[in-house]
Amino acid sequence: MITSRDNETVKLCAKLVKSAAFRRERSQFTAEGVRICTDGVRSGYSPSLFIYTSSACEKYAEEFAFVAENSDRCIEVSNEIFGRISDTKSPQGFFCVFNMLDKQENPYRINKEGSFLACERVQDPSNLGTILRTAEALGFEGVILSDDCCDIYSPKVVRGSMGAVFRLPCCITEDLPAYISELSENGVETYASTPRNATDITSLDICGGVMLIGNEGSGLTDGAIEACRHKVMIPMRGRAESLNASAAAAMLMWEMVR
Amino acid sequence: MITSRDNETVKLCAKLVKSAAFRRERSQFTAEGVRICTDGVRSGYSPSLFIYTSSACEKYAEEFAFVAENSDRCIEVSNEIFGRISDTKSPQGFFCVFNMLDKQENPYRINKEGSFLACERVQDPSNLGTILRTAEALGFEGVILSDDCCDIYSPKVVRGSMGAVFRLPCCITEDLPAYISELSENGVETYASTPRNATDITSLDICGGVMLIGNEGSGLTDGAIEACRHKVMIPMRGRAESLNASAAAAMLMWEMVR
Repeated sequence: MITSRDNETVKLCAKLVKSAAFRRERSQFTAEGVRICTDGVRSGYSPSLFIYTSSACEKYAEEFAFVAENSDRCIEVSNEIFGRISDTKSPQGFFCVFNMLDKQENPYRINKEGSFLACERVQDPSNLGTILRTAEALGFEGVILSDDCCDIYSPKVVRGSMGAVFRLPCCITEDLPAYISELSENGVETYASTPRNATDITSLDICGGVMLIGNEGSGLTDGAIEACRHKVMIPMRGRAESLNASAAAAMLMWEMVR
Repeated sequence: MITSRDNETVKLCAKLVKSAAFRRERSQFTAEGVRICTDGVRSGYSPSLFIYTSSACEKYAEEFAFVAENSDRCIEVSNEIFGRISDTKSPQGFFCVFNMLDKQENPYRINKEGSFLACERVQDPSNLGTILRTAEALGFEGVILSDDCCDIYSPKVVRGSMGAVFRLPCCITEDLPAYISELSENGVETYASTPRNATDITSLDICGGVMLIGNEGSGLTDGAIEACRHKVMIPMRGRAESLNASAAAAMLMWEMVR
């Protein structure tokens, strides 16, 4: 039972929540909340550390037992200390540290029939979390991310993805245009979503391939667009100039699999 | 130029930002940021109050002149005071108070060919903002909201909607099931989105009508579902149990107009 704010484990957890650089350095990330922690364990990952409050252990007895028996180390903390590592408004008293997942998806493994999503410099963690959740729900086989997307291990992405982070194969690449070019050259259908000189997505008969979506403000880079075989867009009829990135991604992904 | 924290105008603005009850009481709401304030004015609404910082007036000279000349009253405040009314991390120094919009959409005005969205107890302001933005971008003609949805005039909804709040006709109703029943009886196609006993949305030939989406956690109430002529769903293939409300709404709305 830890009650001291100066405890090294507590400090480490708080830093893992806040800093992407520290997560990379330690190759660890955190998950908070009953559902997401049990989701992680159910997806086959064992927390290296499980931190809980006494009230959580009573209130969520079943989930508590399940997570605790699969964790390398379990520590009870006071509500006050939990508040220090918590990233949420109403903490449930469930917090896990996981080792980063071994996620690799190389171009040669991408089959021509499957549906994949590629994100270039998606910056908002809520958007990225929602996008991963949608990709999983629609049966996408994997996600490719440029290395300047926001950190997929950030607490907001992990939570917003509703556990998809644990399950969806994904690959982070330093050179997304080169990666996509290689896929295009190997016969994979690649689609850049861009409003410029693009085809109405409903006029194409899409069945699998890779859909590229870009940054919330500036969209895809020219390099990424040029690496794709097709340019597609969601036709807009209203007076709004744009769609929210995760709403646009939802429609584009849906068009690929509907 | 206001520099005092105790200024009554500043206090009033801060309360309008925070309290939905106070917004209703005053029949006013706020918008913050260069884009959203100019959007409101461009949509034909005159701010009753425009609050700005001196740096904003220099940095955004054109927008400043446009908003200022259309506002009933303009007040310069210090950066410190602006921080007190601001709801954002990086304030731009643009803040407007608008009178609530006269938004009415009665069932008899809903034409059978148009596309409308109805929201029942959508609770998250980011979701509602994104949903309104998507509805406008896809050319929906109006939105019907149950009165237990989150406040459409909350700063997060106004911002997330990218100004759609100003332009999209909408109606807030105390009894959504009764409202929808009336539409159904009058020959309008009404669609409840629900996973229970529903038809795959791709198997219907939808062309206009009203799409109902429900609460983030519990979905639509039985009463709302029964009021609809059709029950529809987005078929899910992955392991995720659900979709984010605004992502699901995007796909459902897109299916209605694609």
